[in-house]
Amino acid sequence: MATNEIVSTIKNRRSVRKYTGDEIPEQAISLILEAGRWAPSGLNNQPWKFAVIKNGELKDGLSGFTSYGGIITKCNACIAVFYDTLEGYNRDKDVMSIGACIQNMLLAASSLGIGSVWLGEILNRKSEVNSLLGIDPRYELMAVIALGYPDESPKSSRKEISFLTIMRK
Amino acid sequence: MATNEIVSTIKNRRSVRKYTGDEIPEQAISLILEAGRWAPSGLNNQPWKFAVIKNGELKDGLSGFTSYGGIITKCNACIAVFYDTLEGYNRDKDVMSIGACIQNMLLAASSLGIGSVWLGEILNRKSEVNSLLGIDPRYELMAVIALGYPDESPKSSRKEISFLTIMRK
Repeated sequence: MATNEIVSTIKNRRSVRKYTGDEIPEQAISLILEAGRWAPSGLNNQPWKFAVIKNGELKDGLSGFTSYGGIITKCNACIAVFYDTLEGYNRDKDVMSIGACIQNMLLAASSLGIGSVWLGEILNRKSEVNSLLGIDPRYELMAVIALGYPDESPKSSRKEISFLTIMRK
Repeated sequence: MATNEIVSTIKNRRSVRKYTGDEIPEQAISLILEAGRWAPSGLNNQPWKFAVIKNGELKDGLSGFTSYGGIITKCNACIAVFYDTLEGYNRDKDVMSIGACIQNMLLAASSLGIGSVWLGEILNRKSEVNSLLGIDPRYELMAVIALGYPDESPKSSRKEISFLTIMRK
């Protein structure tokens, strides 16, 4: 069966950690958030919240909370994705839906020629991130997405379908 | 900023619960799994496993474990998505990546004209699902995706971006 643009974008998206420094238009950021907004969630509870950070001082502050801080310093914008714990109904299902929301944003970025990487190690210091940004503890940090025009073409790999499929009947 | 096919697919995908009964080609199922396989995960650990169920008796068995069983009975195929707990390193991050994997599959299905719905209520009886399918308890059920050609055009809604964005600096 022939592939199509959606499946190609899904297969060709890579984590991009080096950026040209060119500025991402505000409208592109808005379109990426719009893609995140349309993710599915259990009971359609949409337990996600977004903080967009382009400000240099805030990015520098954020970069101090992770071993991958260089990526945050050099990217053009970050989207911090939070779990609104007051909107949650089941942690696993809510967290999965936030994963779907993040993936929508990564795919939308890729479709606009914008590189992105999903940063998770920073969660070790999530309460400090909230303090730096002045964000209420009801919002729990789930990921930081770094965005920038790609200055690298990384390769990646995945496990084989035959290994991942444990039953087909 | 103009939208594009990726963002349109993301925005126009809906949960489809009524199906024509037409058979989904095996190659379409394979392409959907392929999309799932290319999701990002922390440390690229890919903690997901798939069980594809088209067999009528197994679908009937599964349908008994959820209040939404009618959807499972009438869909053409299900993909049960499992968390391979032996491959996990951090539950929140692993569960988020499985959400990204599921979203890739829903988008791929949509791009092929196949309707899908992400079923979660069945997780209340996840160990019984493993028993029915003869699947080792190391694999923890995370979701069942029902697939079929759409026999409805559902509407949906989302919270506004201005409400979801708690900071933009």
